[in-house]
Amino acid sequence: MVTSGGDAPGMNAAIRAVVRTAIYRGLQVWGIERGFQGMIEGDMREMNLASVGGIINRGGTILRTIRSEEFKTQEGQTKAVEKLKKYDIEGLIVIGGDGSFRGAHILDTIWDIPTIGIPATIDNDVWGTDETIGFDSAINTALEAINKIRDTAFSHERIFVIEVMGRERGFLALRVGLVGGAEAIIIPEVKYDIQKLCRRIKEGYRRGKTSCIIVVAEGAERAIYLASEIENRTKFETRVSILGYIQRGGIPTARSVLLASRFGAAAVDLLIKGERGKMIGLQGETLTPVSLEKTWGEYKPIDLDLYHLAEILSL
Amino acid sequence: MVTSGGDAPGMNAAIRAVVRTAIYRGLQVWGIERGFQGMIEGDMREMNLASVGGIINRGGTILRTIRSEEFKTQEGQTKAVEKLKKYDIEGLIVIGGDGSFRGAHILDTIWDIPTIGIPATIDNDVWGTDETIGFDSAINTALEAINKIRDTAFSHERIFVIEVMGRERGFLALRVGLVGGAEAIIIPEVKYDIQKLCRRIKEGYRRGKTSCIIVVAEGAERAIYLASEIENRTKFETRVSILGYIQRGGIPTARSVLLASRFGAAAVDLLIKGERGKMIGLQGETLTPVSLEKTWGEYKPIDLDLYHLAEILSL
Amino acid sequence: MVTSGGDAPGMNAAIRAVVRTAIYRGLQVWGIERGFQGMIEGDMREMNLASVGGIINRGGTILRTIRSEEFKTQEGQTKAVEKLKKYDIEGLIVIGGDGSFRGAHILDTIWDIPTIGIPATIDNDVWGTDETIGFDSAINTALEAINKIRDTAFSHERIFVIEVMGRERGFLALRVGLVGGAEAIIIPEVKYDIQKLCRRIKEGYRRGKTSCIIVVAEGAERAIYLASEIENRTKFETRVSILGYIQRGGIPTARSVLLASRFGAAAVDLLIKGERGKMIGLQGETLTPVSLEKTWGEYKPIDLDLYHLAEILSL
Amino acid sequence: MVTSGGDAPGMNAAIRAVVRTAIYRGLQVWGIERGFQGMIEGDMREMNLASVGGIINRGGTILRTIRSEEFKTQEGQTKAVEKLKKYDIEGLIVIGGDGSFRGAHILDTIWDIPTIGIPATIDNDVWGTDETIGFDSAINTALEAINKIRDTAFSHERIFVIEVMGRERGFLALRVGLVGGAEAIIIPEVKYDIQKLCRRIKEGYRRGKTSCIIVVAEGAERAIYLASEIENRTKFETRVSILGYIQRGGIPTARSVLLASRFGAAAVDLLIKGERGKMIGLQGETLTPVSLEKTWGEYKPIDLDLYHLAEILSL
Repeated sequence: MVTSGGDAPGMNAAIRAVVRTAIYRGLQVWGIERGFQGMIEGDMREMNLASVGGIINRGGTILRTIRSEEFKTQEGQTKAVEKLKKYDIEGLIVIGGDGSFRGAHILDTIWDIPTIGIPATIDNDVWGTDETIGFDSAINTALEAINKIRDTAFSHERIFVIEVMGRERGFLALRVGLVGGAEAIIIPEVKYDIQKLCRRIKEGYRRGKTSCIIVVAEGAERAIYLASEIENRTKFETRVSILGYIQRGGIPTARSVLLASRFGAAAVDLLIKGERGKMIGLQGETLTPVSLEKTWGEYKPIDLDLYHLAEILSL
Repeated sequence: MVTSGGDAPGMNAAIRAVVRTAIYRGLQVWGIERGFQGMIEGDMREMNLASVGGIINRGGTILRTIRSEEFKTQEGQTKAVEKLKKYDIEGLIVIGGDGSFRGAHILDTIWDIPTIGIPATIDNDVWGTDETIGFDSAINTALEAINKIRDTAFSHERIFVIEVMGRERGFLALRVGLVGGAEAIIIPEVKYDIQKLCRRIKEGYRRGKTSCIIVVAEGAERAIYLASEIENRTKFETRVSILGYIQRGGIPTARSVLLASRFGAAAVDLLIKGERGKMIGLQGETLTPVSLEKTWGEYKPIDLDLYHLAEILSL
Repeated sequence: MVTSGGDAPGMNAAIRAVVRTAIYRGLQVWGIERGFQGMIEGDMREMNLASVGGIINRGGTILRTIRSEEFKTQEGQTKAVEKLKKYDIEGLIVIGGDGSFRGAHILDTIWDIPTIGIPATIDNDVWGTDETIGFDSAINTALEAINKIRDTAFSHERIFVIEVMGRERGFLALRVGLVGGAEAIIIPEVKYDIQKLCRRIKEGYRRGKTSCIIVVAEGAERAIYLASEIENRTKFETRVSILGYIQRGGIPTARSVLLASRFGAAAVDLLIKGERGKMIGLQGETLTPVSLEKTWGEYKPIDLDLYHLAEILSL
Repeated sequence: MVTSGGDAPGMNAAIRAVVRTAIYRGLQVWGIERGFQGMIEGDMREMNLASVGGIINRGGTILRTIRSEEFKTQEGQTKAVEKLKKYDIEGLIVIGGDGSFRGAHILDTIWDIPTIGIPATIDNDVWGTDETIGFDSAINTALEAINKIRDTAFSHERIFVIEVMGRERGFLALRVGLVGGAEAIIIPEVKYDIQKLCRRIKEGYRRGKTSCIIVVAEGAERAIYLASEIENRTKFETRVSILGYIQRGGIPTARSVLLASRFGAAAVDLLIKGERGKMIGLQGETLTPVSLEKTWGEYKPIDLDLYHLAEILSL
């Protein structure tokens, strides 16, 4: 088992579920430290029931995860596979996002290591699963931050532009904006119109609003630019808050732990059943395996109904 | 619109969604204070966009909810319906649990008030929806409490029996126990065997555990009795914590707010479409209306896979 | 170093401060596990910089603390002192409450082990220090719980009687009641009059209050009895919440960590200077050592000004 | 009563304490909205017991606070004083930081309005009080953020530079860094040496640390510059997090509410006793009035012992 890519709250609960399910099923489990780089370096330790005691509610990943340029080369992959063979690894579980699944796919298809992926990223940008481990936690962390900022926005009669994570996709921003009661949400999937946005803000003020929260995904527009445009056009005092790395960490929510526990156990059971080259996904309330290739190859649509709902509710 | 039954985090977000959607659709909205008792007393106020400003993240319900014995009588119902007629109410939205939906059903069928129900209760014991408003919040509140108690359990090498809400059903206890990493979960749906439980605890200690968390639904067994049985049989120091009312309150989680927002908007749209006698439910990721009668008439099964998963993961 | 008595948030930060300061000063440090019982059993481990890495924000105590009947006997003490001598312990730091300091005093005076005490208990009932480690954390935990319960009290128009820890003293209850905006506070230090209390509640309702929070220290009155008396006399629906063990655990607040850090470093420095038989206390903003005997021998007065302030502010 | 300057958690608790104490003492109270600008515009409302119900645990200020350029002019001040006279205001309470106290001092001395100040700012940079309202809350908010970021720092083996508020003074950064277990703290009061800092980081890594947290006050150095210098010199991956406005908001901690309650009541009592031109301060555990002029005229020293303690404890 390896964790890879950006860390996400609930990764540790997934590690715990993999270890305990595997031992319950009579298997031996090794944890690979520091992502694919640790695989290359053979940085592995056997894990028992006690190695995952007390980690269920910890943020981050006890196995750690660092980027590996070396793994992108054939030489690096050869080294990694040698290490896996040395320890007689018969199956691999990769916990991470779609970037990590590309690595997983290579190991599965080219190097013949049976591999199962568990989707864990706060961005929720993985096709084949309604939700990834850490997504619910990140939403709640960002929501707490917005609740704090709203106090100040109200007290100072200001507009706040709050930038949340999401370079290419707006899943996080959309949810956060909707549940945070934001007056507007800017995401990469929906083109925004600065004139319309400013008109909307001014209408809100005319109706009696004295403050305003705008949530923007980092990939849709830079918050600082947006804030200065809004201030120039509306003449209302506008401030910026970039939530940044606090969104990645913290104690996972119940839902992230639940998902991690279900995914972890299911991944082990898939390997036992001889499945490989799959990611375990959540569809509705059902766990469904999907091809690793599809997780990045297919486009995961964003729920535009939620976007329109947010527009209505922020009147 | 009326809130009824026990309060649940997210009720205010549902109120906000109903009000804003209704106004957006060109309707007038009245809030009935203090549940069915307030309906009898004509305790109503018109609501506008501003009346629901700043409530999205507040626990409880701004409309309040008290029990009404009078509404159970035909006389009480007559008075209530007179008040609704007086204000030309053309449709009613009832936010609450299955008890409240019985009242809603009576108003819809006997008194001909078109009524839609929105499921909101921390117990999640309503048929026809995977999740009720407040359920996710209560799980997270209980999880926080367990995380605190685990510190003390570890420090003092003690067993803790933690009683969570759930008189007849164990939905909350099962989720809380699973994500809280409890060593055992006692719910009304699964008969427990005190001997087997104690054997399991002793085996855990033999394998090196020095503390133990047991989550019990209040309806399955009294925590105090259970703790004294365990202490007598295992000789390990055992303590009790009854979480009680803190589970009902607090800032709603993102998921409870999201559900409340979707349910609130959908309920208004159902009324507009001429639907009645229905509850709006979540099935998978889809909103689906179901008959009010079924919400209490059908038995909602508990997910025994989660129960077994918890057993494996708490090894 | 040993932790003893009930656990308190911040104990780990004190352990960290003792270890790092001692090593910085060129000393060797041993951690005694499981309180005085572990001392008897020689359950000790040397601690280095890494053994206290990552513990600053953990609740409970990594050294654990269990009750020891054996240490109360001369035989038990003889064994404990033998173990200390075996490891060439030249000085002992006891982290705990006044009960633990009695043990510390015996070791210092009768068995000639130079001993320094660090006050850590959520009750704050130790003479010689304005504040103990964990007190601020427990206040904030209880405050969070009250904020949650207030949502329900408001929504259901109920009276809530909330029982907080404090068998003999009301320091915690007084602070919690004051900052939680409780309508009344019942503590062992001030005789309460049930008639006056109920009159006050009824006057509040006449002035427009529709809910009411009463905070009671467990040693002043049983919450369940108080609630039933109030309900009988006022006819308002009254509910009980017993906060219990959640008050002991959880991530320590900044203030508990600060105090723990200062106390831990100061205790090491006192031992180095040849001081003994003292507890390090906080007086105003100054750290002051006081005789161990006084910590339980002198009566620590409660701040009645705060009690009267609470009465005025809860009008 | 007026709130002015940057908002701080606990301001509402101070407003509540002023209102309730004043009414208890038989006085009439007016709240001035939107700071000195609202005073100029006569934006005032009478406050009764109910106007401060339910605000004790809300962040920000219900009276709001906006900057007023107009109040800096004699014309603006004339208008403001006319409004105060019109309402027969006999005494004024200003809740804010040292900037606000300059305005308060002008009203007291030049315009003969008896004025008392209550220190409320997250920066704690006011002479004459050990602590200001909001300081403890901001420390705890920043601490929570650091705890989250540490998860990611550990998981990715990274250095994190965390920028906290504090343009001219490092009170907040020092406390946050100490209780957050930061490896280094950069404040305006202590010159830092980038070479020494990087050497210290490298030594930590040699001893086995794999991640590192550096807390910097915004006025001491720009976090982004610092991070790039560290990355260049140490070759360790370094990231930046700017906490920003989340530090201002949120539910106040118990200690901020306690302080606010004591200050609010004391300010009213001072006015009644005929005191004026003073700020109420906390010195040790005692409330002490000091001259308004001194609050910005004297230099408040930072506690360098804490700075050195942080160096020892972050070994």
